[in-house]
Amino acid sequence: MSGRAEAADRRFERVAVIGVGLIGGSFALALKQQGLAGHITGCGRNADHLARGVALGVIDDYSTSVQEAVRGADLVLLAMPVGASQAVFEAMAGQLAPETIITDAGSTKASVIRAAQAAFGAVPPRFVPGHPVAGTEQSGVEAAFPTLFEGRRVILTPLEQTDMQAVSAVRALWQAVGADVVEMSADHHDEVLAATSHLPHLLAYSLVDTLARMAERREVFEYAAGGFADFSRIASSSPDMWVDIAEGNRDALLSVLDDYLGGLNRLRADIDNGRWAEVRQLFARAKLARDGFVERVGRQADH
Amino acid sequence: MSGRAEAADRRFERVAVIGVGLIGGSFALALKQQGLAGHITGCGRNADHLARGVALGVIDDYSTSVQEAVRGADLVLLAMPVGASQAVFEAMAGQLAPETIITDAGSTKASVIRAAQAAFGAVPPRFVPGHPVAGTEQSGVEAAFPTLFEGRRVILTPLEQTDMQAVSAVRALWQAVGADVVEMSADHHDEVLAATSHLPHLLAYSLVDTLARMAERREVFEYAAGGFADFSRIASSSPDMWVDIAEGNRDALLSVLDDYLGGLNRLRADIDNGRWAEVRQLFARAKLARDGFVERVGRQADH
Repeated sequence: MSGRAEAADRRFERVAVIGVGLIGGSFALALKQQGLAGHITGCGRNADHLARGVALGVIDDYSTSVQEAVRGADLVLLAMPVGASQAVFEAMAGQLAPETIITDAGSTKASVIRAAQAAFGAVPPRFVPGHPVAGTEQSGVEAAFPTLFEGRRVILTPLEQTDMQAVSAVRALWQAVGADVVEMSADHHDEVLAATSHLPHLLAYSLVDTLARMAERREVFEYAAGGFADFSRIASSSPDMWVDIAEGNRDALLSVLDDYLGGLNRLRADIDNGRWAEVRQLFARAKLARDGFVERVGRQADH
Repeated sequence: MSGRAEAADRRFERVAVIGVGLIGGSFALALKQQGLAGHITGCGRNADHLARGVALGVIDDYSTSVQEAVRGADLVLLAMPVGASQAVFEAMAGQLAPETIITDAGSTKASVIRAAQAAFGAVPPRFVPGHPVAGTEQSGVEAAFPTLFEGRRVILTPLEQTDMQAVSAVRALWQAVGADVVEMSADHHDEVLAATSHLPHLLAYSLVDTLARMAERREVFEYAAGGFADFSRIASSSPDMWVDIAEGNRDALLSVLDDYLGGLNRLRADIDNGRWAEVRQLFARAKLARDGFVERVGRQADH
């Protein structure tokens, strides 16, 4: 573990975490465990929830005011729903020292960058947009744990004007808590995540809803087996969080959804017309791609 | 375990299993373990594969000829792909003693019943159509294990003319190997399974294929996380088996696919038009249904 802590080139004396849920709470716990943070202030709308964060040792104190929470901070992490980004940025504008580093953990990136632009007039050079690709269908500070990011990807999407030292500092922090950090453009991030995360959630919610409508006249769920449990697991995720993400990444999501609908309609026509060789080819291509995914990057995730 | 064996009202001296894969092999092992079968003959097209089944102790001997395998059998289980049903029924016609009980393990039921009708002229009264809702994305005799059916549902779809004693005997066998047996009509079975099993497989294959097409220009799979691994697991299933099932249950599958496409297109329009309250309602309804599914029947399957 000490090797990792050495990867971070600096310790932050005052950290503010806006949104103390699974991600924000786990980040706070991981920084503490690595000795990378002095004092951590949590911020959110619900004081009871924040008090629980203090009781659990996740944060040191809290404020329900963003202005108050970020005052004197040398690092600010935004980990609340992305839809609240502009309001949070507006609340912190004028409260920050010029050297304060801001980063975020939002699942969409272009929308968060637009929110910063709108709130500050221009995207601050020390704002490093980021996204830890981690999480479970659990949420809330009680679900937080310090090793959540170990072996997970964190995607940073700095802009041309982003301060290189700020990027390095944020990269070093994520590496120190065990993550594998990569950089790409915000648009590229949004396209890739729309395909591999946002669209699957949409499809799972939509399928379960279709079945629930059938279930009003049929006991469909009674005969669902393990494959259905796996396929539909992500439909147990937080509706608020996923509406927020769908809204934040609407354009990229609609684009990949249209791609998908095109493919599914062609598959429907193949089945309807008995073109089984084409259906078999599609299934075989998909199996090859999915087995390859497990081989290369998903073995841990495939249990 | 002895309580279970007592549930079966008879032992079968000569059993023929057509198709010695995960399901047929596990059924053979389970019958042996419960002392419910004397001699078990396996049948399939591949002699090497069948010889491996003998070496593994799954079957006692084998033949690549259906005629030969079923001769003298008092119980025949069909566990090969459903698309081969008519040919197998035709091969066994005229070879069976009048008291021989036939059952099957096909994932579609109306198509298997039609195949029996076509092969025998009329569906034999001692043919009890069945479907053990069990399996993994693994396949082949090497994957077989005797406890596969413990706690799983087996659906029997007898016709009006089906012999009641034959139904009771088949029911008792499945109960003896640990399954929970229910009866319903073949059409009802096909509709329910199309929704909870066949459609999810189709959607998973189609999604992975969409992503694989994107992956030609983007490294999409690199950033896929646990949710994607779960959602797409069933796309690692056997393409041959799932083409066979899609073909066998085409009408019910197209019907529920059209339901699903209708819902997905409405969701698309809601997202496109920014109707987020409607989107949230759908996600929340789906989460409620999915959490309820886990609560009632899926806890074991949800890990």
